Amino acid sequence: MDWKGRVSPKTISRLSLYRRLLTDYAANEHAERIYSHGLARLAGVSAAQVRRDIMSVGYSGTPNTGYEIRALVDHISAHIDAPEGQQVALVGVGNLGRAILSYFSGGRRAQLKVVAGFDTAPEKTGRVLLGCRCYPMDQLAEVARRERITIGIIAVPASVAQETADRLVGAGVVGLLNFAPVPIKVPLNVFVENVDITIKLETVAFFALRSR
Amino acid sequence: MDWKGRVSPKTISRLSLYRRLLTDYAANEHAERIYSHGLARLAGVSAAQVRRDIMSVGYSGTPNTGYEIRALVDHISAHIDAPEGQQVALVGVGNLGRAILSYFSGGRRAQLKVVAGFDTAPEKTGRVLLGCRCYPMDQLAEVARRERITIGIIAVPASVAQETADRLVGAGVVGLLNFAPVPIKVPLNVFVENVDITIKLETVAFFALRSR
Repeated sequence: MDWKGRVSPKTISRLSLYRRLLTDYAANEHAERIYSHGLARLAGVSAAQVRRDIMSVGYSGTPNTGYEIRALVDHISAHIDAPEGQQVALVGVGNLGRAILSYFSGGRRAQLKVVAGFDTAPEKTGRVLLGCRCYPMDQLAEVARRERITIGIIAVPASVAQETADRLVGAGVVGLLNFAPVPIKVPLNVFVENVDITIKLETVAFFALRSR
Repeated sequence: MDWKGRVSPKTISRLSLYRRLLTDYAANEHAERIYSHGLARLAGVSAAQVRRDIMSVGYSGTPNTGYEIRALVDHISAHIDAPEGQQVALVGVGNLGRAILSYFSGGRRAQLKVVAGFDTAPEKTGRVLLGCRCYPMDQLAEVARRERITIGIIAVPASVAQETADRLVGAGVVGLLNFAPVPIKVPLNVFVENVDITIKLETVAFFALRSR
C-alpha cells in the first residue's frame, strides 16, 4: 500500500504529541477533562487545529465540558498504535544509538519496542545494553525475521547509511528513522523520516542571526 | 525582529542540505557543474523546487550548463551563514549531548561552533569533551556572555527543559534546538526548532503498519 496522500505525517506527529501531553497533564494536574484551547496551548498549535486532528481519530468533545482525557488518549492510541505492538531494530550503537535506547528503554511506549541493536564493533555486540540485546551486523536478517522487526533506526555514519537502509529493507523493514546526515533511497512502500541534526542547527542559526 | 512570514524554515533547511550534497558531490565525483534535476535527485525534491530555492539566494544557472557548484555553494553560504561565525552552547552532556558534539567537533562547519557544554553532574564538567569545554550550570550566564553565545542546544530531560530554555534565553540566546520531549515556551524573538525522537518514531511506526 502506498501511504502517500492518505494521511499526513504531520497529523500523526501532532496526535503522538497530544497523547503524551494529555498523559502528563492528567498525571500532573489530576485532571480528567481538557478543552481544545487548553490542549492547543500545551501543544503550541491553534485550537481549530486540535479540533480537526481529534475529529480525525473519531472522537469529539462538547463545547461545555471539553474532552474526556482518558477516552481521548484511548482514541488516539487506537488510531496510531498497532494492537499487537511493533518491533524496532537500532543499527549503530554509538553515542546517538545509546541516547535513543535510553529514550525507549523506560518502557513508556510498550507498543513500540527496540528489541535488537546492531553494530560492526565487536565490543558492542553479544551483550545487553540499556535493556536491548546487541548483535553483530551479519545477524541482521536472521534476527529481524525471528523478532518480526518492521521498523529500523539508522544511527550510523553517512558513508554506510544507504547500505544499512538496503539491508534493513531486505530484512523486511518498512519504516525507517534515519539520523545519518544523508538522504537515503528506499522502495515506494517504505516510509522514511529523516532527522538531520546539522540541518536543524543551521536552520536555528539562520533565524537566530536575524533576531538580533 | 520577528522572523515569522519572511522566509520559511523549510527553505533554509533545504539550502543547508543542498550545500552539503553539493560539497560531497563535487568532492566525490570531481564535478564542477550540476543541473537542477541532478541536485533534485540527490536531495529527493523536485527540480522546480530546487530552482525556486536557488533563485531565492540570488543565483541562477543556465539551461545548457546548469549550476556552477562552487559559486552556488558560495551563494548559499553567503545567504545562510553569519560571516563572523556563531557560537553555540550545549546543555546536557549525556549520550545525546556527546553524539551532538561528535557531529560538530569535526570542524566541518567552521561558522557554527559548539564552544561550551553545560551539565549539572560534576564529573562531566571542568574538562574538555570532544573538543568542547564543559562547565557547571551555574556558569552559564557568565560563559554565554564571554563567548558571545547566541544559540543553545537543549539535550536535558523533559522535566528541566523549560528551566534550561529560560536560562539560555536569559543569557542572550535567540535560537534553540530542543531535543527534550516537551514543547518549550520562549519569547517571540527566539526561534525554536524541536526534535522529538519519540514522535518521529511513532510517526514511522504508523506508516510502517499501513505498508504491510
